[in-house]
Amino acid sequence: MDKNKYNFFDKVTVYKENEIFLKIFENNNIKIEKIVSNGQISPQNFWYEQKENEFVMVLDGFAILEFEEKEVELVKGDSINIPAFVKHRVKYTSKKESTIWLAVFY
Amino acid sequence: MDKNKYNFFDKVTVYKENEIFLKIFENNNIKIEKIVSNGQISPQNFWYEQKENEFVMVLDGFAILEFEEKEVELVKGDSINIPAFVKHRVKYTSKKESTIWLAVFY
Repeated sequence: MDKNKYNFFDKVTVYKENEIFLKIFENNNIKIEKIVSNGQISPQNFWYEQKENEFVMVLDGFAILEFEEKEVELVKGDSINIPAFVKHRVKYTSKKESTIWLAVFY
Repeated sequence: MDKNKYNFFDKVTVYKENEIFLKIFENNNIKIEKIVSNGQISPQNFWYEQKENEFVMVLDGFAILEFEEKEVELVKGDSINIPAFVKHRVKYTSKKESTIWLAVFY
């Protein structure tokens, strides 16, 4: 996508079955994804615990991220940095609207 | 900001004199900034040509980025990847509203 623009609000599909993960850009240092949630949550007792750091922002919608020691509610514009190997899961995403995430793995 | 949220629409100051650059997060691999423009543009004949790659998204407002061979209009949700050392400048930012940028330097 170098020097070609991509709009994160384009092609937002309401897909009730699974979250949609769309790779927008990747090189050796970084991976940028658009994620669209429509009410999906992480499976019970499932935790993400990945080796990459992750910076994530909610561009639209509403979600709750769960960490081992706390929960964080994320509205439009909210961002959070999740260091590598920090356990987290998606506890809630809005059922009334699509939740659009920007995720930067680095 | 690890595991503490930051909202990019918070504290958007309309400051006519200069663009505002706010560092949101930085480590050895990455730097994340919020930039707020209120009509400012790059000085004439000035080009950014930095050694970091930059992924940038317009979260609100309107801007035009100029490259040597083309111009790219950016509305809300538009993102673009600018490889290191690629010359670019801000040709225009909206005078009617604040333009809020997310910039990821990596």
